[in-house]
Amino acid sequence: MRNSDHARDRLTVVGGGLVGSLLAVYLARRGFGVDVFERQPDPRMPGPRSSRPSINLTLCERGLAALDAVGLKDRVLALTVPVYGRRIHLIDGSTAFQPYSNRGEAIHSISRNELNAVLVAAAERERGVAYHFDQKCTGLDSRGGTVSFEHAVTKARTEVGPTKIFGADGAYSGVRLQLQKTELFDYSQQYSPQGYKELAIPAGPEGRPVLEADALHIWPRGDFMLIAFPNRDGSFTCGLYAPFHGEHSFASLTTEERLVAFMHEQFPDIAPCIPSIAEQFFARSANTMVTVRCRPWSRHGNVLLVGDAAHSILPSYGQGANAGFEDCAVLDRCIERHPNDWRGVFAELEELRRPEMDVMADLCVEHFYELREHVAEPRFLLRKAVERRLQELYPERFASLYSLVAFTRTPYSEAVRIESRQRALVDRILAVDGIEQKFRSEMTTLVEHCLQEVA
Amino acid sequence: MRNSDHARDRLTVVGGGLVGSLLAVYLARRGFGVDVFERQPDPRMPGPRSSRPSINLTLCERGLAALDAVGLKDRVLALTVPVYGRRIHLIDGSTAFQPYSNRGEAIHSISRNELNAVLVAAAERERGVAYHFDQKCTGLDSRGGTVSFEHAVTKARTEVGPTKIFGADGAYSGVRLQLQKTELFDYSQQYSPQGYKELAIPAGPEGRPVLEADALHIWPRGDFMLIAFPNRDGSFTCGLYAPFHGEHSFASLTTEERLVAFMHEQFPDIAPCIPSIAEQFFARSANTMVTVRCRPWSRHGNVLLVGDAAHSILPSYGQGANAGFEDCAVLDRCIERHPNDWRGVFAELEELRRPEMDVMADLCVEHFYELREHVAEPRFLLRKAVERRLQELYPERFASLYSLVAFTRTPYSEAVRIESRQRALVDRILAVDGIEQKFRSEMTTLVEHCLQEVA
Repeated sequence: MRNSDHARDRLTVVGGGLVGSLLAVYLARRGFGVDVFERQPDPRMPGPRSSRPSINLTLCERGLAALDAVGLKDRVLALTVPVYGRRIHLIDGSTAFQPYSNRGEAIHSISRNELNAVLVAAAERERGVAYHFDQKCTGLDSRGGTVSFEHAVTKARTEVGPTKIFGADGAYSGVRLQLQKTELFDYSQQYSPQGYKELAIPAGPEGRPVLEADALHIWPRGDFMLIAFPNRDGSFTCGLYAPFHGEHSFASLTTEERLVAFMHEQFPDIAPCIPSIAEQFFARSANTMVTVRCRPWSRHGNVLLVGDAAHSILPSYGQGANAGFEDCAVLDRCIERHPNDWRGVFAELEELRRPEMDVMADLCVEHFYELREHVAEPRFLLRKAVERRLQELYPERFASLYSLVAFTRTPYSEAVRIESRQRALVDRILAVDGIEQKFRSEMTTLVEHCLQEVA
Repeated sequence: MRNSDHARDRLTVVGGGLVGSLLAVYLARRGFGVDVFERQPDPRMPGPRSSRPSINLTLCERGLAALDAVGLKDRVLALTVPVYGRRIHLIDGSTAFQPYSNRGEAIHSISRNELNAVLVAAAERERGVAYHFDQKCTGLDSRGGTVSFEHAVTKARTEVGPTKIFGADGAYSGVRLQLQKTELFDYSQQYSPQGYKELAIPAGPEGRPVLEADALHIWPRGDFMLIAFPNRDGSFTCGLYAPFHGEHSFASLTTEERLVAFMHEQFPDIAPCIPSIAEQFFARSANTMVTVRCRPWSRHGNVLLVGDAAHSILPSYGQGANAGFEDCAVLDRCIERHPNDWRGVFAELEELRRPEMDVMADLCVEHFYELREHVAEPRFLLRKAVERRLQELYPERFASLYSLVAFTRTPYSEAVRIESRQRALVDRILAVDGIEQKFRSEMTTLVEHCLQEVA
């Protein structure tokens, strides 16, 4: 198809997933016609689902604000379960609860597939938006502004353009792969040595959840961990995170016997609640997780990468979708500031967002390690308690990195700067002799003392 | 073509450049049949040459040793010009000579195209080696061990395999691009913000060279530089290295007038010797330079990356081809140690070579900066003089990093360890008051003094 009739106004979004669909809504609201080309089948159609992982994700302030700006927040929130903190499950059966916030703030668990379906439906309701499913991106001429697709079933080839092309096709982006072959395109993809598999925990009798439903549950075990996200129907979606190779790895769990023994030994309190563990586990290979960085995000004022296609990060802060949604909102403001100047729009988006995502990429690698290894250590728990107490005592002066990331729209880079200043103070407090004992009784004095020393 | 008749013994090398051709020789000597598939036309054929840059390169001990092991050293050396050091040309017309070695050792300047032609000819003389030119790699099944090509002219498609596939197809490797799409393949490509263009300086009257012919000539100018390599016929091949963008960049040199003014202003002593500067300069766009790292280098015991395809580095130490040749020699020893076990061969090669090339990649980025910026500074020259004096005084104990890289086969990583120990001593010497004056007269005492302090 050649959109020559509407060449000036008709835009092309590659990828009809979360970010591509929200982007289509934003662009339509600005009066553009939008063609969305998606490699997978329509997510609302029955039949065998695609190879896309369907594990839950969590929406927080950044993502919700971007949905709110186009009136989609409430529709999406209706599909979520609020999660107020992490319940840590130790191997001896004891647990500890770490609230995300001391103001009762929550993040919101939602099934990726349900969120995708609602966003596709919302985009299709916009005037001038058309979806084309089963279309794989096979070629790109960034200078000419044309892009080619091949239909998964008919193998028919389509060339679109000249048009503006938005590569919102995820961590394994086909648009980016094409850009990678162009001159001076810096690129890196780095896989986590860990992968994950999904396991479902159904609701108990009378639809009652088998775990508290307003928490995210974590079973940290060093090299590997289990996480459970609550769903609205009382069920949970689990992710088993483990190395691909080595002891306690996906490569070592090759038989039903070994798997069942491993699950019951490592997760004794929850393994009995996971039915058909082996069937679920062996149905699919483990999903990979990749950190992607590249630059530039745009070429010739014709092609722009957004969302995971531009900056895939590990899921440790639950920021992938939120950051992608934030891209859409920021892009919208760039379009407002640079009417009829796509080069200007794309340059400003990258200038605003790339440094943020570089910071976040590093943070996610560090935090992923922290979640598996340290989250259950007494010293780590004490640090978290001290941070929370500081926030209670000086709510205007202290905010944890997590709360800045999850409950505000403070730029990631600014959040990290704030955290590193606060860390110095917390380090001083933790270095005080007998801090465990003094903590409750003398906290205020302690803080005053340390503040003087640090200042 | 399906090599099913010879499936066990016939190997496939993708890339008939420097490394692919030497590798074919090595493999043939071990009794394997080898098909070499090269994207470009036959380098020995007349006609418009390919898009491959033809700038000179320098061979040193590592590369020569790898050629020597298959009896090609003398044939190649006959095409080279020995280079004993760098002649630095300052903007005021003054020059300084920095010998590479104080034992009279030289590196060897050679035209890349001539070297390529001699290696292709050598490989074709081996029993069982066949070249297939104009064949672009278009697909790879690393699990099945098959690889596909498309002929540049006829567009005919060929599938080869099952076979063992050696990706020796350079920094922009097609084999690597295919591997990049496979699971858990870590990859990064990082371009230098600088590029280069070739400029030829013909011989003067009666074939006499216009510069001393046994040196590499450098005009360091901070952001940019000119380098001249001697050829056997008295001519020189220059590389003008400059940023792609900004002041004094390829983007700023857009007219003949600007270019000629720039060249005469910046390189007054040599610009008059470069004929048709503008014609040469504007004939081609600037070449890019890229640092490539990836892992793993092999898949399923069927595919292996070697040379630039596995580890492209900046040309600052002149190590690209030398390191690629060294790969061939090391691979040959791995084949000897693991007969009939390609998985074992490939794993050992990567274990031995990847850490070395990671070190070298970093070193080349640093040294490239040094060549442009510091090589003409008095402090840098003094440091080099001190290092040379240390080598004279204690030839068994001191060796410069450059000499370890260029004149020995010491592993790169070991060379860097040696250098960092020595650097501490040189730093101490340079910190002595009035070192410039004391240098000649009291060097030995100074060294003894500093050695005691450092120890």
